[in-house]
Amino acid sequence: MSKFAFSLLATDPKSMARAGLWETPHGTIETPAFMPVGTAGTVKGLTPDQLAATGAKKILANTYHLALRPGPEVVADLGGLHRFFDWSGPILTDSGGFQIFSLAKLSRMTEEGVTFRSHLDGSALNLTPEKAMSIQEFLGADVIMCLDECPPADAPEEHILRAVDRTTRWAARCREAHQRSDQALFGIVQGGTIESLRIRSAEALLPFDFPGYAVGGLSVGEPPPEMYRTLEFTTPVLPVQKPRYLMGVGRPIDLIEGVLRGIDLFDCVMPTRNGRNGMAFTSTGPVRLKNARHLRDTSPLDAECPCQACQRFSRGYLRHLFMCGEMLGPILLTLHNLTFYQRLMKGLREAILEGRGIEFRASQLARWGESG
Amino acid sequence: MSKFAFSLLATDPKSMARAGLWETPHGTIETPAFMPVGTAGTVKGLTPDQLAATGAKKILANTYHLALRPGPEVVADLGGLHRFFDWSGPILTDSGGFQIFSLAKLSRMTEEGVTFRSHLDGSALNLTPEKAMSIQEFLGADVIMCLDECPPADAPEEHILRAVDRTTRWAARCREAHQRSDQALFGIVQGGTIESLRIRSAEALLPFDFPGYAVGGLSVGEPPPEMYRTLEFTTPVLPVQKPRYLMGVGRPIDLIEGVLRGIDLFDCVMPTRNGRNGMAFTSTGPVRLKNARHLRDTSPLDAECPCQACQRFSRGYLRHLFMCGEMLGPILLTLHNLTFYQRLMKGLREAILEGRGIEFRASQLARWGESG
Ligand SMILES: [Zn+2]
Ligand SMILES: [Zn+2]
Repeated sequence: MSKFAFSLLATDPKSMARAGLWETPHGTIETPAFMPVGTAGTVKGLTPDQLAATGAKKILANTYHLALRPGPEVVADLGGLHRFFDWSGPILTDSGGFQIFSLAKLSRMTEEGVTFRSHLDGSALNLTPEKAMSIQEFLGADVIMCLDECPPADAPEEHILRAVDRTTRWAARCREAHQRSDQALFGIVQGGTIESLRIRSAEALLPFDFPGYAVGGLSVGEPPPEMYRTLEFTTPVLPVQKPRYLMGVGRPIDLIEGVLRGIDLFDCVMPTRNGRNGMAFTSTGPVRLKNARHLRDTSPLDAECPCQACQRFSRGYLRHLFMCGEMLGPILLTLHNLTFYQRLMKGLREAILEGRGIEFRASQLARWGESG
Repeated sequence: MSKFAFSLLATDPKSMARAGLWETPHGTIETPAFMPVGTAGTVKGLTPDQLAATGAKKILANTYHLALRPGPEVVADLGGLHRFFDWSGPILTDSGGFQIFSLAKLSRMTEEGVTFRSHLDGSALNLTPEKAMSIQEFLGADVIMCLDECPPADAPEEHILRAVDRTTRWAARCREAHQRSDQALFGIVQGGTIESLRIRSAEALLPFDFPGYAVGGLSVGEPPPEMYRTLEFTTPVLPVQKPRYLMGVGRPIDLIEGVLRGIDLFDCVMPTRNGRNGMAFTSTGPVRLKNARHLRDTSPLDAECPCQACQRFSRGYLRHLFMCGEMLGPILLTLHNLTFYQRLMKGLREAILEGRGIEFRASQLARWGESG
């Protein structure tokens, strides 16, 4: 697995935070890192150049969406994901499991796999661990994920226990089915917010010696302090010398809290989705651009931000775009929010390298205010 | 009017086509030229840098839309149109008259002006020649237009005659009301497709010595040959040493036919609107990207086009974006179509400079096929 070597450069003396370098076949990633979500093979509204200008190096694409449209064989025929959307950096695909539980009309789950109906046209489809591997090999991302079962936050303990053990058995089948040596297959730890189950899940996956481990089943409805507490007893069970990926999380503060608890890698739709809705993350806290007080505001969205939205336009113009439903509003706010997230991770990484992760959190929170 | 000096470099020996240079306070334009339409202060989906990359130098914005949202005083407070959407090249605003006739619920037109209801919220507004000048001075474009009356193609002759004479009287009031010396005010020739009325309109406007003349009231439902015929008897009445602008036209072939009949300047929503709908103009004719035959097509949209859409993506990927309703599809096709239009005008200009305008038309038509 030398293609995916992960090396730790520093560990924060006062937290569990780490700064590392992670090699992939499509370039080296500085961790901690945030991956923008390019659901259907496009980060909505951005060209690859605009995406790269935000500082993003690694992108996530959704297996579920691409499997439905245009289909894994079509992506392969069009040259694989990197060629498909012309992204020369590393790409990660999820297994499709999460979207089946959240989007599809789930019809049946058995030990063999999941049978579900497409949220687009209701057509019946099924996903097994072997099929999840096959699809992700057609798509051709650098990092691919095991199929897992992700129960909701309010699931009873016996349901979570069953999901943990099924996730382990499915991980074994994924490991067996996975063939491409240029792809790293990550295991996914489940277990809700229950310490014994998280440890059970992690310890069951360790013998497979995956090149990286994800923490799944969080940010599914539990309060943030529960998520932080769960990370505190989960990451210590994971290998120190492998990257740790917290799936689908989250707000800027969640990224900081996750990093301080030993997480290296994140993805979330929040910066892009909120951006499309006119909500900007800024160095002084969130800004809602549709607010009438921005009507004649000649000041930039965020005076400290180097992105195009902040360097070239006024808040008044950005508000105008949203009030008129003009595409350029979502585009510019997506650019801005992703730039904000990338700069946050960069600042966090520098803080870890200088041993001041805790101080970094305090200074950011003070600037963002309570709504950060 | 030295700020808007127009100089002819060449006249095609076998047609009425001209190649010129037109100075404005925001740069010199090579004519013939096509202006992309930035309705509400944004060419839908493009950043100013992307827009400039298409080769566009001069942009049109719609007074009607900007007057409703965010309002002319707000645009002025935000620094005027150039600062508003950060376009450093020249900008032209129309008078708002055309949208009042096409979009608004027109309630009453008198000699004084037009009272209408907003298509957005039904609020009552009015537009007089003086108000059209005041609004356009607040907006701050380089070139502004007189308020005119634009009858439909099937209007009876007495209606068109009335519109011609009212347009003349309104032009006089616009000339009187217009104050900013950094803005060029164009007169608009009306008269439908009737030779005597076009000549009546043009000759009535000439004494005002406008720095440029527009041909309005075409592409409003008449067949293209009628439009071409109308240009043939209209442009000869206009001053040779001033730019001529054919408003709201048109298809690629219409641009060529217009130039061959002495037109220097065009605007049209067709490349942007069609692009958003998945229709591309290419060097071998129109392409509908949603067509199933592009599903696995690895070839570029247009092998001769230098734009990002053609250089970096396959037809299969572009089709996928449209099938998924992803913003990047409209963005990339807008980029491509505008690049196509700009390259067409550039090719046309070179042909005129070399005295082969007629041959240029023939060679383009042969390549585009009947659907060009
Ligand atoms: Zn910014
Ligand atoms: Zn192109």
